[in-house]
Amino acid sequence: MFHTAHAAPAQAPKTPTGPLTLSAQGSFFIGGRDVTSDTLSLTPKYDAHGTVTVDQMYVRYQIPQRAKRYPITLIHGCCLTGMTWETTPDGRMGWEEYFLRKGYATYVIDQSGRGRSATDISAINAVKLGKAPPSTLPDLFAAGHEAAWAIFRFGPRYPEAFKDTQFPVQAQAGLWQQMVPDWLASLPTPNPTVANLSKLAIKLGGTVLLSHSQSGIYPFQTAAMNTQGIAAIVSVEPGECPKPGDVQPLTGIPVLVVFGDHIEEFPRWAPRLKACHAFIDALNAAGGKGQLMSLPALGIHGNSHMMMQDKNNLQVADLILDWIARNARAPRRGR
Amino acid sequence: MFHTAHAAPAQAPKTPTGPLTLSAQGSFFIGGRDVTSDTLSLTPKYDAHGTVTVDQMYVRYQIPQRAKRYPITLIHGCCLTGMTWETTPDGRMGWEEYFLRKGYATYVIDQSGRGRSATDISAINAVKLGKAPPSTLPDLFAAGHEAAWAIFRFGPRYPEAFKDTQFPVQAQAGLWQQMVPDWLASLPTPNPTVANLSKLAIKLGGTVLLSHSQSGIYPFQTAAMNTQGIAAIVSVEPGECPKPGDVQPLTGIPVLVVFGDHIEEFPRWAPRLKACHAFIDALNAAGGKGQLMSLPALGIHGNSHMMMQDKNNLQVADLILDWIARNARAPRRGR
Repeated sequence: MFHTAHAAPAQAPKTPTGPLTLSAQGSFFIGGRDVTSDTLSLTPKYDAHGTVTVDQMYVRYQIPQRAKRYPITLIHGCCLTGMTWETTPDGRMGWEEYFLRKGYATYVIDQSGRGRSATDISAINAVKLGKAPPSTLPDLFAAGHEAAWAIFRFGPRYPEAFKDTQFPVQAQAGLWQQMVPDWLASLPTPNPTVANLSKLAIKLGGTVLLSHSQSGIYPFQTAAMNTQGIAAIVSVEPGECPKPGDVQPLTGIPVLVVFGDHIEEFPRWAPRLKACHAFIDALNAAGGKGQLMSLPALGIHGNSHMMMQDKNNLQVADLILDWIARNARAPRRGR
Repeated sequence: MFHTAHAAPAQAPKTPTGPLTLSAQGSFFIGGRDVTSDTLSLTPKYDAHGTVTVDQMYVRYQIPQRAKRYPITLIHGCCLTGMTWETTPDGRMGWEEYFLRKGYATYVIDQSGRGRSATDISAINAVKLGKAPPSTLPDLFAAGHEAAWAIFRFGPRYPEAFKDTQFPVQAQAGLWQQMVPDWLASLPTPNPTVANLSKLAIKLGGTVLLSHSQSGIYPFQTAAMNTQGIAAIVSVEPGECPKPGDVQPLTGIPVLVVFGDHIEEFPRWAPRLKACHAFIDALNAAGGKGQLMSLPALGIHGNSHMMMQDKNNLQVADLILDWIARNARAPRRGR
């Protein structure tokens, strides 16, 4: 099989089968801070006063035998959890296991304040107890199926699907089950997930940070904080790319940005792609090593925003793994 | 090694090492219902109106090669998630991987409304938007470190530890990071986790339901709904046992209830143990097959409420696995 930087594989790979042998697996948390509250409980059955730990980040890892040098850290997007990378809604292999079977250790996180990473509910109880006004409630958001349909570009509007969509729309219920409320706007600034990713990258002694959508910007923010431990950044359809003036800390880190299909048909998406092009151009002009991979430009059509769950998800994974194999490296200090 | 039903192993087992080979792994959701809301978002950036799916239950599974007949479904307790069963706070192997290495497929859930299983935040947004009074906020609870210390029986009161405690108190921060708010009181009745466990047991064609603390009663409630697929029930320090008058649906299912040490020193715990003894006696009198395993009665001392994370967690696991090997079976209909 012959690859150039912009040649697509001739066809989608077969799903690997057979036993999966791990050298290790486990889970742990990174970060967090202790806060004291008087409103932990609404009933006298449990103590309302006490200390809780918040802003930590859940990490689950699996390490294959003869693992490649750099593990891949998988960072989910808005209204989702680490489940994003596991089994697809229609029951196929996700990127987590595929990467593992291709020899990469995987570290799957739940963003701080999401999934298995705790939220802080004491402000809600304070309002219920009449100790604080409703305006002090946290800013919460849940994406409805109808809005997510268009944001994820399954089709122009719910429930109309693009004829060529790669998303398994018949299994959409499996995606809706994965979605969780988003507490991001109620978290401290800067977002604790970013600092926790830096601690994780340093702990691992080098990792590829692979982010998606809302989290697309996080690895860049992490690098701006500290480039240590960041062997490469892959940003799948980031909600936001760094501004061209902010590329300096990134010039020592290989960067790949990936976009799917039907971008130009959405006023939400077209400007994001344009801004990411400008970012990659500025990064390369500053001596960095960036690539913007547009799947339709490679002849791969119909990919949605949830390309890690699309029917051709392993084909897209191969393109990313090929790029990682050629680019991941010990980070140089940004110039 | 010689075992009788009440003989403790001569010593704690060594932690298994070496490669871990799986025939399959993955994750999926069970259950859930669609609800429509006008308060999904607080900002015009995202649509406030739409449909979200709530009350579903996250399940992650791993299947070893040559798996034994009945998988074990691991059901966490209050203020925790499936992380309970993974790596311990001090970095040792948890029951999930140990059971796997002993030949059992494992299914780890996040209770509905906890961890990767969505909560419904629309009532909170409704109050923040002034569309509903604070009294309509959900009933939420977070266990503080100080209260949890005594409830989990690490010692008489925070931060005083029992001299013989098996909990790795020096790594307590790792447990505090695991704790999440509990939305149980805001969920519909009956608790959707119970119905979802029944669907899971039926889907698996037989499983051991292993529950803990708050969830201790769930497998019994699941069996009262439908015994199908329940090969055995192991309840680790249930917050509540079934009432002696409620044993009839359970007479066809082997039942093990496990309690640790220092029970009599806590007014919260002593009555629970007593009530569980009465339940097991009633179950056996009705023709069922119940056992109450008190670890101190077996000469094993210092176990906390979090015995799956205690320093001798694998010793306790062996006792449970030995019981499962001797008792799990296709369920008979309760008489």
